[in-house]
Amino acid sequence: MSTKKQLHFGAFMRPASIHSCSWRYPDAFSDANFNFKHHIRFAQTLEKGLFDAIFMADHVSLLNMPDEALKRSATVVSLEPLTLLPALAAVTEHIGLIATASTTYNQPYHIARKFASLDHISEGRAGWNVVTSSNPLEALNFGLPEAVEHDERYKRGRECYEVVTKLWDSWEDDAILRNTETGIFADLDKLHPPKHKGEFYAVEGALNVARPVQGWPLIVQAGASEAGRQFASEVAEMVFSAASTLSTAQEYYADIKSRAKAYGRNPDHLKVFPGCFVIIGDTLEEAKNKKRQLDSMVDPSTGMGSLSILLGCDASKFDLDGPLPEIPETNAVKSGRQKLVDMAKEDNMTVRELAQYVGGSYGCLEMLGTVSMIADQMEEWLNSNACDGFNIMFPYLPQGIDDFVDKLVPELQRRGVYRTSYEGNTLRENLGLPRPKNQYCD
Amino acid sequence: MSTKKQLHFGAFMRPASIHSCSWRYPDAFSDANFNFKHHIRFAQTLEKGLFDAIFMADHVSLLNMPDEALKRSATVVSLEPLTLLPALAAVTEHIGLIATASTTYNQPYHIARKFASLDHISEGRAGWNVVTSSNPLEALNFGLPEAVEHDERYKRGRECYEVVTKLWDSWEDDAILRNTETGIFADLDKLHPPKHKGEFYAVEGALNVARPVQGWPLIVQAGASEAGRQFASEVAEMVFSAASTLSTAQEYYADIKSRAKAYGRNPDHLKVFPGCFVIIGDTLEEAKNKKRQLDSMVDPSTGMGSLSILLGCDASKFDLDGPLPEIPETNAVKSGRQKLVDMAKEDNMTVRELAQYVGGSYGCLEMLGTVSMIADQMEEWLNSNACDGFNIMFPYLPQGIDDFVDKLVPELQRRGVYRTSYEGNTLRENLGLPRPKNQYCD
Repeated sequence: MSTKKQLHFGAFMRPASIHSCSWRYPDAFSDANFNFKHHIRFAQTLEKGLFDAIFMADHVSLLNMPDEALKRSATVVSLEPLTLLPALAAVTEHIGLIATASTTYNQPYHIARKFASLDHISEGRAGWNVVTSSNPLEALNFGLPEAVEHDERYKRGRECYEVVTKLWDSWEDDAILRNTETGIFADLDKLHPPKHKGEFYAVEGALNVARPVQGWPLIVQAGASEAGRQFASEVAEMVFSAASTLSTAQEYYADIKSRAKAYGRNPDHLKVFPGCFVIIGDTLEEAKNKKRQLDSMVDPSTGMGSLSILLGCDASKFDLDGPLPEIPETNAVKSGRQKLVDMAKEDNMTVRELAQYVGGSYGCLEMLGTVSMIADQMEEWLNSNACDGFNIMFPYLPQGIDDFVDKLVPELQRRGVYRTSYEGNTLRENLGLPRPKNQYCD
Repeated sequence: MSTKKQLHFGAFMRPASIHSCSWRYPDAFSDANFNFKHHIRFAQTLEKGLFDAIFMADHVSLLNMPDEALKRSATVVSLEPLTLLPALAAVTEHIGLIATASTTYNQPYHIARKFASLDHISEGRAGWNVVTSSNPLEALNFGLPEAVEHDERYKRGRECYEVVTKLWDSWEDDAILRNTETGIFADLDKLHPPKHKGEFYAVEGALNVARPVQGWPLIVQAGASEAGRQFASEVAEMVFSAASTLSTAQEYYADIKSRAKAYGRNPDHLKVFPGCFVIIGDTLEEAKNKKRQLDSMVDPSTGMGSLSILLGCDASKFDLDGPLPEIPETNAVKSGRQKLVDMAKEDNMTVRELAQYVGGSYGCLEMLGTVSMIADQMEEWLNSNACDGFNIMFPYLPQGIDDFVDKLVPELQRRGVYRTSYEGNTLRENLGLPRPKNQYCD
């Protein structure tokens, strides 16, 4: 086995591609979001490519966007992650299955039970992406007049996490005896009902599911705000980060690992996976052309709102087909704005193209080029304390996944930075993470 | 095709057998409740036997029983139905998948979304068993001090049903265009957010799942009380009833169908499936012996509480190994009590055996005997307006399922009262039920 630090990959499915026009790309499955047969194919190909996990984003509402964008978005119909992932568990053997579930709109008993069941059905491959949900449309679907305020969401999220982990521990690992001789099925001395009474939740009884195969399903978080980073550093075992440059990734990596250490955790037990949009070409130019073609399908209206926010001024007043004018100083996040301004200049982009770019893949980290160039860049990130792996976003499906698995994976394996088979049986084992002890045992 | 009225079968899985000692029976899977691989085998065998559906009961807590019974019960660990059934959808093609979900402990947006997703994943095989939940332990797991009162539960259940069906209709069938030329994914003129504001729920936005394949997943109910019967007659398309004698089944059948008719429905669109515990033997004596062996494994403590309730007096004071003494008149339900008293006399049963009987299969309808005897009895029920089919309860697994499919099914087919292949592609089509129109269309 290679002694080099190893790359790990999650597949960020939202539920298919993050790019808003992936469904329009030539030969792409336009129903990729919503056709279960396609999802089987994606999952099995990702497993062939030895991905650690499929990662399903989620929203319990339509996305909060104007009608002009909404009617162009494939996200309007998607399969609920905790319904889709068990189905994929039945047709895969190794790949991890990470579902997003909001602590603001789900009761802890339901969360604990569904993830525990998924962990048993998949024989130890479940992960919970803990989100607190800020989309105001979600609140309106659950009887609330507006989104719960940020700090309260996090307080609620922490308590929900606490109750869920108590519920997973409510049966000790060896509590289920199934002694057909004596007729005793379960040892009630090894049963620990949470009897939880907190600020937001009261949960008395034990889970009616045995302790998960992994002890606890993998805990995943995507904390970006101060409260989010702190929460992630305390509880997450995988963080999905959003750094779009090497230096911001390094800053995030150092910060979250040192927070984890300060909290008394082994920082190696918290894996950092930035989102990464990958397009592979035989040449750099080919990869860039694919991206340009994809972005050219984006209706400018889809990106204009985001572009205005990123630039800190109303971009809809600019000439769509002219270059980006000089932008006055504002309070917009400077690194994001500068990246756009520089890119526009370097690539001679019009305002339309900038809006299409932002409306396409949301300005996240991109790696475009030949397999060799992308492998170089991934190795650089991995070896400069910017990440432990990547959450890969595919530009279109199935070709984006096929290219990654058939072309990039063998190159990374040749370099000795990527597995040639799964190391363990569970998601935790493949990521090199420990199985949590039961909090009710010494 | 036979012109005879046809039998239909659901498999009542709770999550495996209803009998409290099924897990102890010789050669039975003691982990039948909790081993996904076993569930695949059960589902595929049931599909080979052309069952209409698998029906998963559910509780969001441990069952409400004393420790002496709890520690002997295989129900303490089970897989959550809406996690298990999608996984089974992936490994089956025809069989319907009915999950129980409580309107008291689930938000309508979640219910609508998960069942719609299951219906898409299974290509039209989902069903929702609408329950309102009375187990007080469930309330304590969801922050309530006690179970919600009966009438309020039903009011809440009705409103939840109303919101869920609105959400299923929020996209018209042809709303999803996926026009790669124009870039328009969805026709927003065919989008109907519920904007519901009721006594219990406020749900503003549309579902982020396309209209289910079946329009609506099948609506299943098990109404027994007055409010339950009325609700079932108005909304259910399959009722799971609990009649244990032909005459009570006929009374229920006539009552629920006439209520449906009075409500303006076609009574043929409401199918009545009594629960039916089946044990097949080469002789009647062999079948009875299997049942006796199974019941003999029941610890009397498991049934003593139920026996006392059924008899209307404290049975724990009786001599366990003596005959049932004379019981004074009480307010206990008379038909249930008389059935027990008669059975005890006829079969010379001791109090212990009665408690074991009640603690085994809860005194539900039983059909024991040769395939010919059971087929006769099923035909009699079918042709005397007592049922449209049965929800079959298996005594132990996998043998109970295998016997049913390998022995009884061919006999029923020979008699022309059971299908030799699935008639349709969806659960509704197989049951001869219409696809609901979208309530927002003319």
